[in-house]
Amino acid sequence: MPRELEALLGDLVIANRILAHEGVLDDFGHVAVRHPERADRFFVSRARAPELVTRDDLLEFTLDGVPVDPKGLRPYLESVLHGRIFAARPDVQATAHHHCPAVLPFTVTDVPLRPVFHMASVLGGPVPMWDSRDEFGDTNMLIDDVPRGDSLARALGGGTSVLLRNHGATCAAQSLPAVVFVCVRMKDNAELQTRAMGMGAVRYLSEGETRMASEMLMGERQLDRGWKYWRARAGFGGI
Amino acid sequence: MPRELEALLGDLVIANRILAHEGVLDDFGHVAVRHPERADRFFVSRARAPELVTRDDLLEFTLDGVPVDPKGLRPYLESVLHGRIFAARPDVQATAHHHCPAVLPFTVTDVPLRPVFHMASVLGGPVPMWDSRDEFGDTNMLIDDVPRGDSLARALGGGTSVLLRNHGATCAAQSLPAVVFVCVRMKDNAELQTRAMGMGAVRYLSEGETRMASEMLMGERQLDRGWKYWRARAGFGGI
Amino acid sequence: MPRELEALLGDLVIANRILAHEGVLDDFGHVAVRHPERADRFFVSRARAPELVTRDDLLEFTLDGVPVDPKGLRPYLESVLHGRIFAARPDVQATAHHHCPAVLPFTVTDVPLRPVFHMASVLGGPVPMWDSRDEFGDTNMLIDDVPRGDSLARALGGGTSVLLRNHGATCAAQSLPAVVFVCVRMKDNAELQTRAMGMGAVRYLSEGETRMASEMLMGERQLDRGWKYWRARAGFGGI
Amino acid sequence: MPRELEALLGDLVIANRILAHEGVLDDFGHVAVRHPERADRFFVSRARAPELVTRDDLLEFTLDGVPVDPKGLRPYLESVLHGRIFAARPDVQATAHHHCPAVLPFTVTDVPLRPVFHMASVLGGPVPMWDSRDEFGDTNMLIDDVPRGDSLARALGGGTSVLLRNHGATCAAQSLPAVVFVCVRMKDNAELQTRAMGMGAVRYLSEGETRMASEMLMGERQLDRGWKYWRARAGFGGI
Repeated sequence: MPRELEALLGDLVIANRILAHEGVLDDFGHVAVRHPERADRFFVSRARAPELVTRDDLLEFTLDGVPVDPKGLRPYLESVLHGRIFAARPDVQATAHHHCPAVLPFTVTDVPLRPVFHMASVLGGPVPMWDSRDEFGDTNMLIDDVPRGDSLARALGGGTSVLLRNHGATCAAQSLPAVVFVCVRMKDNAELQTRAMGMGAVRYLSEGETRMASEMLMGERQLDRGWKYWRARAGFGGI
Repeated sequence: MPRELEALLGDLVIANRILAHEGVLDDFGHVAVRHPERADRFFVSRARAPELVTRDDLLEFTLDGVPVDPKGLRPYLESVLHGRIFAARPDVQATAHHHCPAVLPFTVTDVPLRPVFHMASVLGGPVPMWDSRDEFGDTNMLIDDVPRGDSLARALGGGTSVLLRNHGATCAAQSLPAVVFVCVRMKDNAELQTRAMGMGAVRYLSEGETRMASEMLMGERQLDRGWKYWRARAGFGGI
Repeated sequence: MPRELEALLGDLVIANRILAHEGVLDDFGHVAVRHPERADRFFVSRARAPELVTRDDLLEFTLDGVPVDPKGLRPYLESVLHGRIFAARPDVQATAHHHCPAVLPFTVTDVPLRPVFHMASVLGGPVPMWDSRDEFGDTNMLIDDVPRGDSLARALGGGTSVLLRNHGATCAAQSLPAVVFVCVRMKDNAELQTRAMGMGAVRYLSEGETRMASEMLMGERQLDRGWKYWRARAGFGGI
Repeated sequence: MPRELEALLGDLVIANRILAHEGVLDDFGHVAVRHPERADRFFVSRARAPELVTRDDLLEFTLDGVPVDPKGLRPYLESVLHGRIFAARPDVQATAHHHCPAVLPFTVTDVPLRPVFHMASVLGGPVPMWDSRDEFGDTNMLIDDVPRGDSLARALGGGTSVLLRNHGATCAAQSLPAVVFVCVRMKDNAELQTRAMGMGAVRYLSEGETRMASEMLMGERQLDRGWKYWRARAGFGGI
């Protein structure tokens, strides 16, 4: 296996551990990365809590969510949702699906989740909401087939994040450090917005501030600072 | 002692540690399991904080809450409550009684605790409330005899959980991994519902969503993912 | 030094560590115990964060807050407050003064802190408030002389706890395990009451429930369960 | 290098770790100290998460935010903000800039952050707010040049702290232990004020109490207690 791919899969393990350690993922949720040489393939763990994921748990999938070689392991029921985002968004190289407790209140109320401090400008603006009932009626809430995955990808549109009604959220970005950054800032912003709304009228970032701060933060320089910090906190050493 | 029983009692120790580690139990509260070969017996620790419980602390009880062999150890004053639920509910193999801080606000107000995201569909619907005053007037709040235990079991009915007014909650399910799952989701749902209610009108799961999501989650496949995750977090290794 | 006294001072170190570990004390606050053989003397650490207190930091004081032998160490400015409570309350053997974050909101508003679940019945009823301004006007807020200490002791009366306006709280009980229990339940109750008040009308314990539950909890049997649990969590082993 | 300077830089590393450990700094934010022998120079880490900062990361800057010898390392984009405060405030020897989650709600609402308990008297009174839009319109929110730094220093005035609209806060004091104390109390006060405002009308410290308590707390004796406690918690041993 080429060295570049090996390094990327190592980073995918680290991204699992980071998002578990930072309270974005718990026993459920997952993070995926596109194959660096085959745009029609992606990697995600077999069905396992992200905090426990190791290199041997990673499986390769087609964009329809079919494991290329299941190796006798059980995949996540919702693996396909990553594939359909990779299919719809050539610019996206990494995705995460989570039930972050701080974010969930925005999925069960009509309060829009909006960037309220500069670090959360990476959300890009008010986060859209996908409601499984609109197209599929009562379900077990999972996004476990291609039509549901395509529907979710449409709701995500060209952005970095989408909420799932009474369920969770999905994030997408240009790299694993970028998607981790978006997930953590979605959490931070949700915490902040909830607290601030309890105190009084909330002042949001302007469109210009959102655009300019996001451009600065989504550059390699800032993403690298976050990635190294969270990696160390998750037990993967410094530097 | 048969190997199956030994393994089950090992899991009972682990369930104690998990529920302590996840913030469901503290110095008080307990978790119990029915004897796998004698439906009229169950096991629970002697009086001890769950985080400290070891194999040697486990005692066997009749369904009236009488220790079969006390071994000179002091039982929990409320051991009997588990027995009366096992007596009333042949389908239940594991029970937990706790004062989870996140859940308590729902025992001191008239706000119904209701499944608000798919993972908490295992609560089954609005959680009923048992009030010790209804049948017993002013007491020290404990469920320490058969009549109180039977009264609580009636309030639980055929469900997975019941609230105790100004006191705590009790959960019941088909296995230790299942009762741990219900307890953790009761906690998660309480946190989420409290936060969301502070933000605006809350959208709950529909009855169909509750039923379909719960069926999916209470299957062995999902319960196993949670159990392995929480077990590892509580210090009992992976796989 | 007699063995009983040595054991008690060992427990005083442990009580410091427990209250730091459980989030009652931080860089400030202190816990004291009466001399078991001289009712006119008590022990408290030199000025040091409770999490760092060791046996060698403990100093003996008269009830006027004067160190019997300062050993060249700097005492807490507020040591005297413990002495004045020991002077006023022959039944009290242990005291704690803290700025627990969960409790502080009740010192800066007019909301009474009241037992809202059975474990907090040990507060005995609505907790009285001492306001330094009533007798002493604008001060640096410390209780650092005999008149202030006596004033605080009057506000405490015959109870287990008293709030200090815009400052913190002081607890008193019959033993170190008992005062630790009161402090932790004061914290738990404050958290619970704050959350519940944000949700709707709050139902408190009745007077009968408060009295009966408190009698049960302040017995050696229950206090011992808490003490062993918190002691283990603070790093002092099981049993 | 003189021993005094070496010790100070060791303390700067410790201050980074303390503020990270206490939840004031995360992947972003920084703490700086003035050169003890050259009032026109200061030290701050290269661009790196404070929890990971070591002695080798520290760089020396002019008060215009220019590294004296960059050593090939990348500085924080906002290093200059510390320089402009040192330029405007000869009494200030240490500064910190942070996005503390507890404090942020006060930057996105019009609620004034005010000392509400004696330990937070070191804020000195209602904390002023600096709004980047007032002089600079829509920006990427950073304070990365001299004019922005000077503008912020004017908003800080003669106080210990200033809020940055939709961004964070900056603190300044006479030493590293003092600026750490101010940061932690700003966090504590923000948490407390937020909770208390949700419960009812809030009673603040009087001006006299603020002045007298602050004088007492900003003395070496109290600062030393906090510093030793936080240093130990951050992994730098007792004393």
